[in-house]
Formats: sequence, C-alpha cells, structure tokens
Amino acid sequence: MGTAAAEEEEEEETSSPMMAPHVAREHREQHGQDAPPGFVPPMSPEDVAAVEAVLGYEFADKSLVEQALTHGSFYYPYRPGETYERLEYLGDGVLTCLMSREVFRTYRTLPPGPLTRLRAANVDKEKLARVAVVRGLDRFLRHKAPFLEGQIDVFIKEMCMYPVHSNGLLDPPKVLSDIVESLIGAIYFDSNFNQEEAWRVFRNLADPLISLETLGKHPVSELFEFCQKTRRGVKFVKDEWDKNLKVEVLIDGELAGSAIYAKKKEIAQNRAAKAALDKLKQTMGQYQTESVSAEVSEQLDTLDLARKL
Amino acid sequence: MGTAAAEEEEEEETSSPMMAPHVAREHREQHGQDAPPGFVPPMSPEDVAAVEAVLGYEFADKSLVEQALTHGSFYYPYRPGETYERLEYLGDGVLTCLMSREVFRTYRTLPPGPLTRLRAANVDKEKLARVAVVRGLDRFLRHKAPFLEGQIDVFIKEMCMYPVHSNGLLDPPKVLSDIVESLIGAIYFDSNFNQEEAWRVFRNLADPLISLETLGKHPVSELFEFCQKTRRGVKFVKDEWDKNLKVEVLIDGELAGSAIYAKKKEIAQNRAAKAALDKLKQTMGQYQTESVSAEVSEQLDTLDLARKL
Repeated sequence: MGTAAAEEEEEEETSSPMMAPHVAREHREQHGQDAPPGFVPPMSPEDVAAVEAVLGYEFADKSLVEQALTHGSFYYPYRPGETYERLEYLGDGVLTCLMSREVFRTYRTLPPGPLTRLRAANVDKEKLARVAVVRGLDRFLRHKAPFLEGQIDVFIKEMCMYPVHSNGLLDPPKVLSDIVESLIGAIYFDSNFNQEEAWRVFRNLADPLISLETLGKHPVSELFEFCQKTRRGVKFVKDEWDKNLKVEVLIDGELAGSAIYAKKKEIAQNRAAKAALDKLKQTMGQYQTESVSAEVSEQLDTLDLARKL
Repeated sequence: MGTAAAEEEEEEETSSPMMAPHVAREHREQHGQDAPPGFVPPMSPEDVAAVEAVLGYEFADKSLVEQALTHGSFYYPYRPGETYERLEYLGDGVLTCLMSREVFRTYRTLPPGPLTRLRAANVDKEKLARVAVVRGLDRFLRHKAPFLEGQIDVFIKEMCMYPVHSNGLLDPPKVLSDIVESLIGAIYFDSNFNQEEAWRVFRNLADPLISLETLGKHPVSELFEFCQKTRRGVKFVKDEWDKNLKVEVLIDGELAGSAIYAKKKEIAQNRAAKAALDKLKQTMGQYQTESVSAEVSEQLDTLDLARKL
C-alpha cells in the first residue's frame, strides 16, 4: 500500500516554452517582432469557410470556429485568450447523449452493457481522433505545442493498420479528439442547443459508425475469455518500479507476450495481451497475417482525399 | 415435477427469503396462488398518476412509468420482463448533456475542471438518490430485493446529516439514483427525445441544484490541500489483505484518522480523511460541532411532506 496521490491529469502538450518550428516561422512571417502582447493571428475567413464546408454547418457566430480550433499553446508567448476547452466540455456532454440515443433507438432490446460499449466506442478518444484525421480537421488546429505534428503523423500511420478501431492498442494525441468534441460543442451552442443539428453533423463526420457487427474486443478481455474457454491460466506481470512500464503476460506460467509503453499502463497491457493472443493463435495454427485489407485501402483513399482538399 | 399449483407453492416457499415482506404480502393478496408463470402485477393507474404528478409530466405511453420503476428482482420467481435498465442508460446520457449545458450557460467563463465537478455533483449517485427520496419516488419502486428497504432507510437517516451532499461519505443504494435516471430517460423517450421536457422535469425535481457556492470538496482532496498549505506530510495506509478495507491516515507519521468500509475503498478513504480533518481542526481549535442546521430541518420537512403525499 502506498500514498493516495491526487489523480494525475492526462498529460497535455500545452505548456512547453518551445514553439513548433513551422509555427514559429509562420508566426514571424505574419507578425514579425512587433505583435503586441495578447495579439495572436485570427483565423482567415477562407479557413473558417473550409471548416464549415467539412462540417456541413454554417455558423451564425464565426468566432466559435476559431475558438473551437485554438489550443492553449497557441497564445504563447502572449497573454492567453479563449481556447477550445469549454466547447470541448460541452461537446463531450452532447455527444454522450446523442450516441446513447442512437444505440438505444437502433438496438431495441440490447441490454445496457453492450449499449454502453457501443456508445463508448463511437465517441472515445481514438474514434474521434480518427474522425479528425479522416476529415482533415487537424490541419486547422491552431497550436504551438512542440512535437504535436510529429505525434499526429505517427498516429495517422498507425491508425491505418486498424480499419475500424484498434481497441486499445493506439494512443492518439488528445488534441485530435478534443477538436471534434469542441466543434460539435460549438455547433450545439451556435444553434441555440439544437441537438438535431449537432447529431446531423456528427453522424456525417463519424460515418461509418461502429455497429454491433464491427465492435471489437479489447485484447485484455479477449485474452481472458480465450484462456477461460481453453482452461489456461493467465497472469499479467509488471514491475512497479520500472519507469518504462513493461508488461509481461504469462500463460500457464510461461511468457507469452510482452510490451513496453511508458505513457499509459492500459495501452501496455493491451499490447502485451495482443502479442500473447497472436502467439497463441500461431501456436494453434490459426495465425493470420495482418494485411492491408480492402477496407483499410478504402480508408487510406478517403484520407488522402480529405488531406488534398 | 408436480402440478402447476404445487410447483408454484414450492417456488413461493423458495422465494420467501428473497422477497421483501411487504411486497410478498401484497403479492399474495393480489394474486393468491393462481398467478401464471411469467405474470407479475401491473402498476395501478393510481400509482402511475401519482408518479406523473411528482414528475409534472403526463406520459403518452403509460407503460413507460411501470418500466422505469421496475427492478430486475421484481420478476422473481417468474420469467424476467422489461426492467428500468435501458431507460436508466438513456437517462444517464441525457442528464450528462443537460447538466453540461446548464453549467456551461450559468458560468460563462469557468474552466472545464470546475464545470466537470459541478456537473458530476448534480447527477452523481448521491444527488440523484437524494432526489428520489426527497420526492418520494422510492415508494413506487417495484422490486423483491432483500434488505433493500432497510438500506434505503439507513440512507435516508444518513443523508439528513448532510444538507447538500456528503461529498463521498455516503454510499446510497444504487437503485435510488437508477430510478431518477430511468424516469428522465422515459420522459426523453416518451417526448420523442425532447431535451427541454427532460430538463424541465429534472430541474424541478433536483431543485436546488448544487452551485459553485454550495459545491463541497471531497475530504481526501481537502486533506491533501490542507496538509500542503500547512506543510504536513500525509499518507493513506491500507492493508490489501484486510477484507474489512480499513484505511488509516497518517499525518507526519502519526495516526490521525481511520475508517472501515468493506464495500468501497473510496468511501473508506473519504471517511478516514474526514476523521483526520476533524481531528486536525480540533487540535487547531477550529473544531465546529455538527448540528442540524436550518437547511437540514427544511429538507426534513420537505421529506416528510413528500412521503405523506
């Protein structure tokens, strides 16, 4: 037993004193050294219109578009102004409601357990981050967080390996899901809290929604179920003192898989479970090589299209 | 295998320890020995009307009232039928959205952290359980869960000690918050997903909402803040092997408070922190005896009134 520490806030890419190189350059070009304290470049009307076109929604208050796409780091080194955080909070609330309603209506007799899993899968960090990338909304994000562009690039490459959802194997940059929530929050607010407008836009952006047929299992759950059925003993082992968060999976006492992911224990566990499952399936002759399926190719095409717009 | 009647009698006998005494009595009176398998008493039109009166909402589909107030245990020993669970799931979704909107609108510049805490406090298990009790909705709950009536009585006595919210010291029976969510879900569904109707009803039921002024802190957070300010070291200790979940709080290495609550670690921690805080304040001469304030008396009056309706 140890100390009950205050719950750690999810790490944000906000606070670094450094500016991403390309942003710093653009910033200098636009405003030189004479930008007054508190002044930051506004979003161009062309960009606002482009975002509206992606969303299929015309804002009464155009300033909401800018607000929904402005990360806290963007104001550096000036006095902080309005950011997307409050709109993200509102969007999170309305999306929870709308997805609850959608699965409640679609699956008339499904119990709350699967309803909750379906809702979660359609509005979780990864699904929303995928929406941001596939629709090209990340290109309009206003930030000066270092490394963020690189993290987004890594996620884009990784997500293409999983056509629908990785089910807990990927760790997308939080800003990507944030801006989808904030844009939906902005529409909800701008339309005088019209949930149908918010739903119409989200339904189009998130298409195809994850259905009961495409809903996958997290590897940890899958491994536990598999081992229960086949009467194998399964144990997750991790060294609490190891800062790399290496997780090992023992099946009937033997090492079956391991993974290292320092940022989040849950992801390390899922990756280790996935490795163990792959090994088990290989051993049992059920191993299937992961290839880029037709579905993935299709998603890649959409992605390229969106980014070329 | 005997006759239907004999089978029934046998089942009745088996079920008696499971059935709350008053329900068992009512059940016998209404349906004697001849209730067919799968048959359960419907809710009376008078009860439906009484619930509608409490809610201030008239249902187009009256069967939703019955469904929203029927716990899974109610069907025992017959074939299970519709329960409140799906409506509770829907109600949870719409309440999250509506409270997000409410605090977003009320506090125009408040950051997401406090917004989230305010939202949570107004729709958490305890707040909703208090709403159920204060409005007398628990009297319409249809269940055969043993001990539940006793648990509700204990919660009613305990909640009166905290006029607004215990902030993590109480553990209300989940069914109480469930039926508030399910009734709100039922209204949302019945009104063709009209969030304004759902909000109008909840706003009245939950009055007064917890505001930034009445929002309290959980004792664990309060203790950490207090000890940080006064430069004291604080540590929570619990024996992982102890099934009673005893939690001890050490301040500067000395035992300052402890609590035992076997059902939930979080509640044991909060109670231990509260004990430590009380001791600290006493030591520092700031101890205030807890008395039934004017606000509590008022709530007791409302409660009596609701239960006499």
